[in-house]
Amino acid sequence: MVRNGQMHEIVRDGPNMKSTDRHILAARMGRIDSSEIRRVFQLAGKLENPINLSIGQPHFPTPAPIIQAMEKALRENRTAYTETQGILPLRERLSRKFHDQNGFTAHPEDILVSSGVSCLIQLLLLATIEPGDHVLLTDPCFLIYRSMLNFLGARITTIPEQFSLKDVEGLDGDLKLIIFCSPSNPSGHVMSAAQIRWLADLADQTGAVLVADEIYELFDYDGAFTSAGSIYPRTMTLMGFSKSYSMTGLRLAAATGPKDLITAMTTLQQYTVVCAPAPVQWAGIPALDLNMSSEVAAYRKNRNYVLERLRGRLNVGEPRGAFYVFPEIPGEDRAFVERAIMEKELLVVPGSVFTKKKNHIRVSYATDPDTLERGMDALLDLL
Amino acid sequence: MVRNGQMHEIVRDGPNMKSTDRHILAARMGRIDSSEIRRVFQLAGKLENPINLSIGQPHFPTPAPIIQAMEKALRENRTAYTETQGILPLRERLSRKFHDQNGFTAHPEDILVSSGVSCLIQLLLLATIEPGDHVLLTDPCFLIYRSMLNFLGARITTIPEQFSLKDVEGLDGDLKLIIFCSPSNPSGHVMSAAQIRWLADLADQTGAVLVADEIYELFDYDGAFTSAGSIYPRTMTLMGFSKSYSMTGLRLAAATGPKDLITAMTTLQQYTVVCAPAPVQWAGIPALDLNMSSEVAAYRKNRNYVLERLRGRLNVGEPRGAFYVFPEIPGEDRAFVERAIMEKELLVVPGSVFTKKKNHIRVSYATDPDTLERGMDALLDLL
Repeated sequence: MVRNGQMHEIVRDGPNMKSTDRHILAARMGRIDSSEIRRVFQLAGKLENPINLSIGQPHFPTPAPIIQAMEKALRENRTAYTETQGILPLRERLSRKFHDQNGFTAHPEDILVSSGVSCLIQLLLLATIEPGDHVLLTDPCFLIYRSMLNFLGARITTIPEQFSLKDVEGLDGDLKLIIFCSPSNPSGHVMSAAQIRWLADLADQTGAVLVADEIYELFDYDGAFTSAGSIYPRTMTLMGFSKSYSMTGLRLAAATGPKDLITAMTTLQQYTVVCAPAPVQWAGIPALDLNMSSEVAAYRKNRNYVLERLRGRLNVGEPRGAFYVFPEIPGEDRAFVERAIMEKELLVVPGSVFTKKKNHIRVSYATDPDTLERGMDALLDLL
Repeated sequence: MVRNGQMHEIVRDGPNMKSTDRHILAARMGRIDSSEIRRVFQLAGKLENPINLSIGQPHFPTPAPIIQAMEKALRENRTAYTETQGILPLRERLSRKFHDQNGFTAHPEDILVSSGVSCLIQLLLLATIEPGDHVLLTDPCFLIYRSMLNFLGARITTIPEQFSLKDVEGLDGDLKLIIFCSPSNPSGHVMSAAQIRWLADLADQTGAVLVADEIYELFDYDGAFTSAGSIYPRTMTLMGFSKSYSMTGLRLAAATGPKDLITAMTTLQQYTVVCAPAPVQWAGIPALDLNMSSEVAAYRKNRNYVLERLRGRLNVGEPRGAFYVFPEIPGEDRAFVERAIMEKELLVVPGSVFTKKKNHIRVSYATDPDTLERGMDALLDLL
């Protein structure tokens, strides 16, 4: 029996594994697929010493005060469940951060601490999306939005990230969520205040919630970043510690937004993620006091260097934040990425992971200047 | 507009919060509810110094070697994303644990490390359950099974945890999952080898996957525990570090089972939880070498003490593991729990969180002997 077109089948072996034709996976599993990325990583895994511009995390170490705060929390035996919503001192510190740095008010009781922005997106989508629900994304976008929305059966409309008022005015009135990431993974695009206002108006007209993934907020090289919550109160703001403080493997993030949606996500967290790792929550408090300007300045320099090297060769738009560029390349992205790996031991990510277009690559410049220079040499050689 | 009978509504306030009657939460959010537990905790929160027998975690501190291993991992800057499936050295050590302690073979490539057993249950159910799918639970059972199954629209059948072959033979042939927890939260019941065989036969007949939540495996006071994977290869075994090593807030667990189901859960983890906290994964390796027999002996003593105090007063069945008893009480559970809080400052959990019956309470004996004695005094006074 093939169940709803499901392609997977549980492997059955061993003495009690009677073969049946019963399929166990939900049909929705057929709608997420990581084979594309896996194929690239399998190819890349064969390389001895690749030039790695595929990385989605800072190359600098986690700042010492964060490590020390975790060690202190461990010494104090802060290893038990915390309250589902996150420890109050962290939510209080986040409340101050949203006020001081993001320019909006978020009370501690309206903040949910979770185990990474991906976890928050999952909680948000599980709490809201029913099959057929309509969601607006900007294109290109972080692959998890599209994957999890497909998984849950949402209907997706995209507008280019460089959208104008005209692009938004043409949209219909039946939207549940409007999701964007600024500064953007994968393009480095920073959403202008005007663009956010247009999306906010659309949210107002349609009853949709505006979801602003601001995990790259610190990597804002031209002072162009506006936090959506400062423009529009009905924003679900997602903030993360992973990129800002190079703690991707420590799993800490927070959301704030419409009260009942935060309540629903908290209820759901209680039944799934339970809580963010306790000692990491404690370390999140001093993290928010850190001055990361020298790390950001280094990546600004990297961004400028990449723009300079690619000028006149590849079109990268205006990457003003995060630590990626997303150039259009001649030919098909997967073939290009395979050639980069085979001919130059250069790792970049095929753009079709982030957009339906097949002629872009994502280049990360979250690395040291030497690696970046070798990467740019290799990339330009390939053209 | 009321959307699929949805009761919740996003609170709208602030200047741009035009009131619309559009509801944003998915209908499924109406099918999980934490109000019952919240109400108890709200009552309990008013107490200065309660006798707390409601706790679902050991009272002893996380063993020092685990803390030290985390500190070492932090010093070595192991703070970045790990591979989605979990670090190989931990999966190798888990493979050895499953062989040596659980009596079955699990290759490292068939093990998924995640951020707690609740996370694994979520991944498992998201990967498998479609609305209307039929799942068998034993009763009473851990509240998350029922909550998340309801959330995803499963059809649930229950059999008593003390089921006989007859109870299983009467079941129909259309099952997707059979889920049980042994030793059991909330009752301490340890599933006999015969019971596991009957469930395995049922799984074989129906094509269902047998899911064994063995998070309390170490708390096996009478040597009665059998790991389901040693009897039936098509078992999805869920193991956790939280209870065994008192690290509930560190978020570490692992699953092993049918290959394609582990693959599906890993794919889904990549889009949701991403990975378990990196330094905690490293600490999981030495944790599995620890000898916890003195902690287990202390809880065995507590179990014996509770049985002795309750003998002839309350029926608790045969609690042979975990750290709970689940006595039948006179009258309605919620009223009893409220009375316990108000009259005796005693915290226990109403049984209706774990079963449809309304006349049980869960009493945790994961505490020091003095607190336990005061708790038993209070409980017996209430009868």
